[in-house]
Amino acid sequence: MKLVSFRRPDGTPSFGKVEGDRVIDLGRPDGPATLRAALAAGTPLADLAPGAAYPLADLVLLPVIPDPAKILCVGHNYETHRQETGRAKVEHPSIFIRFADTLVAHGQPIVRPRASGDLDYEAELAVVIGKGGRAISEADALAHVAGYACFNDASVRDWQWHTTQFAPGKNFPGTGAFGPWLVTPDEAGDLADVRVISRLNGQTMQDQPVRDMIFPIAKIIAYVSAFTALSPGDVIATGTPGGVGAKRTPPVWMQPGDRIEIDIGRIGTLSNFIAHEDALA
Amino acid sequence: MKLVSFRRPDGTPSFGKVEGDRVIDLGRPDGPATLRAALAAGTPLADLAPGAAYPLADLVLLPVIPDPAKILCVGHNYETHRQETGRAKVEHPSIFIRFADTLVAHGQPIVRPRASGDLDYEAELAVVIGKGGRAISEADALAHVAGYACFNDASVRDWQWHTTQFAPGKNFPGTGAFGPWLVTPDEAGDLADVRVISRLNGQTMQDQPVRDMIFPIAKIIAYVSAFTALSPGDVIATGTPGGVGAKRTPPVWMQPGDRIEIDIGRIGTLSNFIAHEDALA
Repeated sequence: MKLVSFRRPDGTPSFGKVEGDRVIDLGRPDGPATLRAALAAGTPLADLAPGAAYPLADLVLLPVIPDPAKILCVGHNYETHRQETGRAKVEHPSIFIRFADTLVAHGQPIVRPRASGDLDYEAELAVVIGKGGRAISEADALAHVAGYACFNDASVRDWQWHTTQFAPGKNFPGTGAFGPWLVTPDEAGDLADVRVISRLNGQTMQDQPVRDMIFPIAKIIAYVSAFTALSPGDVIATGTPGGVGAKRTPPVWMQPGDRIEIDIGRIGTLSNFIAHEDALA
Repeated sequence: MKLVSFRRPDGTPSFGKVEGDRVIDLGRPDGPATLRAALAAGTPLADLAPGAAYPLADLVLLPVIPDPAKILCVGHNYETHRQETGRAKVEHPSIFIRFADTLVAHGQPIVRPRASGDLDYEAELAVVIGKGGRAISEADALAHVAGYACFNDASVRDWQWHTTQFAPGKNFPGTGAFGPWLVTPDEAGDLADVRVISRLNGQTMQDQPVRDMIFPIAKIIAYVSAFTALSPGDVIATGTPGGVGAKRTPPVWMQPGDRIEIDIGRIGTLSNFIAHEDALA
């Protein structure tokens, strides 16, 4: 099943399942109104009563989970990216945090901030937590996954590198693109050979299979949940392959008007244009 | 004025002002119910109608703001701590993020996790945002401050140092002690000479005046708000002086049963015992 968060024509937020070119509304006033609430309620998504149908093309999508309580990101989780950034090999995943107010949906602009022109793309597979927990074992980890989505962990590189801590460069508003939809594990299938690709104005910039992750998804969930409790709707962005703009000669920065796509095969294609902060004010 | 968040005898959360040994309840069903909501409403705190009075000693306190949307922490913001950690001089504050579910109140246990014995203290002055904003200028910054409180940015050092990113070691539950109260700027006065002190079982471990911060409060607010919007109730922990346990020979780790106090003169004294996670299960 593919699930989207969206605004109804009357402006109210909801969520639904994608069937062909239509979206069946699953949000309801007497039940879960959002995808996060539906995951928290624990009712199998397939059992939710269908409401109105809308043409997918007409809907304004929201980030897959518009309001996750926690977004945890993994740094340097593909060998090609570890090498291009000159980072040491480590025995644990490198984890940093993104605030939910950085998220944008499929089709919304990614914001090039006033403060910097060093705006880079990062194609990533995002994992959405379905069943929360703390100290989840690696063996149990995948049973806690609600599904997968595309994520663009867009990064303001000079601010990311002001000090050792990445938070500033990863928390400008409008830099965490997340969409278009959540693909449930049964439909996602085995992701090992699925490729994580970014395309900037049609040109492939990153392209590597999920199997090349240094720390696989189950290990990341086990590690993260060892220090912080995970809840339904929490998001883990699992790291980006080599080929980021910052490490090219000369560096490639995303410019207003550019189109950046994250294409992860069966998981979907997330597409965003870049807009300057001044143009949105 | 001094403001506390607390549980009423009936268990409901509220907030109030401290007058001598009493707390005057300021939370109300038809108005702001929490200190964060009161700050967001923008009504001067002095204008809130007084409710019931409770003896301070009888109340169960909550973290000063129990549910901040954002907690931003500054690393290596005193020269003594920068030197003991061997960190390079930097031109910008080093910022990392704590989740709100790590917070504990004055008098609650700080949790020594099952996963590690390397639990360290960090005495810090916390700034609570009153008026939100983005791209706040250094000149305007202090007008955005609702007040100050003591913070113990307790750190699980081995997890903090697994990689370059501090998030894991700063996000174990029960490690962010925050209290006992918020002191408004008029009552806090000029903080330059006020000393930030930690005492472990009565022995002074850190002791340095606020004026020794590398990046002063106004500069930190300007920097942080350049990349992320601040909202009423958000918390900035402004960094810790030299003298942490990790950098002593041999290292000093907080043990179950230890008492750790953060004493910041007019801002108050935050006191917590250490409890092993297993003892709380």
